[in-house]
Amino acid sequence: MKLHPIWNNYPQLQSELTETLKLMEDSIQLKNKSVRKALLEMIGAGGKLLRPAYQLLFSQFGPKQDRNKAIALAAAIEMLHTATLIHDDIVDDASLRRNLPTISAAFDNNTAVYAGDYLFVACFKLMSGYTGTLRSLQKNASSMENILTGELGQMADHYNLAITVKEYLTNISGKTAELFALSCSVGAFESGSSQLFAKNVSDIGHQIGMAFQIIDDILDYTQNGEGLGKPVLKDVQQGVYTLPLIYALHADRQQLVPLLEKKEQMTQIDKQKVYQLVNELGGVAKAQQLANTYTQNALKKIENLPNDSQNTKVTLYQLTETLLTRTN
Amino acid sequence: MKLHPIWNNYPQLQSELTETLKLMEDSIQLKNKSVRKALLEMIGAGGKLLRPAYQLLFSQFGPKQDRNKAIALAAAIEMLHTATLIHDDIVDDASLRRNLPTISAAFDNNTAVYAGDYLFVACFKLMSGYTGTLRSLQKNASSMENILTGELGQMADHYNLAITVKEYLTNISGKTAELFALSCSVGAFESGSSQLFAKNVSDIGHQIGMAFQIIDDILDYTQNGEGLGKPVLKDVQQGVYTLPLIYALHADRQQLVPLLEKKEQMTQIDKQKVYQLVNELGGVAKAQQLANTYTQNALKKIENLPNDSQNTKVTLYQLTETLLTRTN
Repeated sequence: MKLHPIWNNYPQLQSELTETLKLMEDSIQLKNKSVRKALLEMIGAGGKLLRPAYQLLFSQFGPKQDRNKAIALAAAIEMLHTATLIHDDIVDDASLRRNLPTISAAFDNNTAVYAGDYLFVACFKLMSGYTGTLRSLQKNASSMENILTGELGQMADHYNLAITVKEYLTNISGKTAELFALSCSVGAFESGSSQLFAKNVSDIGHQIGMAFQIIDDILDYTQNGEGLGKPVLKDVQQGVYTLPLIYALHADRQQLVPLLEKKEQMTQIDKQKVYQLVNELGGVAKAQQLANTYTQNALKKIENLPNDSQNTKVTLYQLTETLLTRTN
Repeated sequence: MKLHPIWNNYPQLQSELTETLKLMEDSIQLKNKSVRKALLEMIGAGGKLLRPAYQLLFSQFGPKQDRNKAIALAAAIEMLHTATLIHDDIVDDASLRRNLPTISAAFDNNTAVYAGDYLFVACFKLMSGYTGTLRSLQKNASSMENILTGELGQMADHYNLAITVKEYLTNISGKTAELFALSCSVGAFESGSSQLFAKNVSDIGHQIGMAFQIIDDILDYTQNGEGLGKPVLKDVQQGVYTLPLIYALHADRQQLVPLLEKKEQMTQIDKQKVYQLVNELGGVAKAQQLANTYTQNALKKIENLPNDSQNTKVTLYQLTETLLTRTN
């Protein structure tokens, strides 16, 4: 079990995230040893743990400080995230995740279905053991409902060559930004911050999540796949059209559409052409502009947070800036 | 939307189960219209609604009568059950359920993954809105954890020709009896019955669930598949060996093992031979004996329940007797 190097400069977070990982491991009580092992390996493979980190950071602002509770909720959130990753990997037919075989590839889709379900439930169990009120649990369930509605929405847009920027933003808002928003607001609310403060924090999480997903989608067009542990433009072949490509389609449909219409039959050369065209037609640059807007909104809102004894605000600012200017 | 004829003689249950179905429909707020339609069709296709029925019946025993709450919890339980069915149909590669195409067959496995996830979450949302305490929600999550552990256990036993009666019973205890036990005990506990009473009721549910699953498994060997809306002995071909077959294997491995070892390659004739052998070797009769034991245990415990003004005890007895002596 090793933590991602992004946390090297933040000793308190490093220690709390290590405890978060430990609690996740302890919560996975599957009798099926090989599935258990696969889940533990996936968890221990050095994912960034961004959502639990934001939850832990925003939990520093409330008057009710209970670090055990904060760590339990952080673990629950990362388990939820992991469950969606496992089910996403079935849907995307993905073979690698964090440079390890996915559960669906290492075992089969059937195991992945139940393993994901198991994590969903384990997440709820942990949450219902630590959250303050049924009300907040219900709010969490509503967020998860939005996440799944987003996933089903994205599936309905597969191979949609007419997908608009707005539709893309709606999909990533459900798929990604919702869980960032939830992580941040749970941290604030469960540590006793006011509803108003939690609402503001939820919005910060939303902006971060939107920027994060756009940047993730840009990276598909700015580096080869080796570094991300996944093959290049497989998503495009499967009909997932993201912001850089959508902007490029706006600039020039004639060259791109015939390539995209090949769908599953796209060759390596077709994909390289798409990659090149999306860059040349300014799709990457325009997407980067929109990501910057979300990033600046988030940073401005963080600047306006109250000061605290732990310098949490400074950490939040640094972390968010680092995260949202990554180029790999 | 039509209710199963099993409820024709129980007007109060009939009306509450109709409300349960209505609430389930209202809870499915998916924007993806075709998936929503498929879920609604599945829900409206006349499943027996046994688990909500038991929940509703046992909720009559407590001092705190709140029928809206009882109906909401009944809907949550059936949504949970439906979620597991959808994911089971992916795993079993099933094409029909209740004489309708399964979600995985009508759409694809990907849609079925998210549609099941969506129902899981919608169930939790409904529960957290109506359940009395975080404590009981946590108990529900623990039960679901056991159900999934059971599913993963059964998968690990696929094609296991040495599977024992005990291993089979452990698997169905998780896969089926756990949710019956939960349904019954949630009904009792959430209507204000004592922990002790709820524990006893949970045990009744466990006995009913065990008998129910064994009888379901016997039916595969006593009737052709038309009536059940699923093809004959497909499970065996996929390596799921149930009690009648396990008993038959105990009686005579020599004739059965070579047939079973063909796995996916079993022909229609092979499956008919297995069907015949399981009957001739007394597998069906022995399984029926064990089912009877569970049934008698359940009925005896129901007889010992306190009397109530609504005659719930009589309804419970009749329903359980009818259910556990079905031959189709």
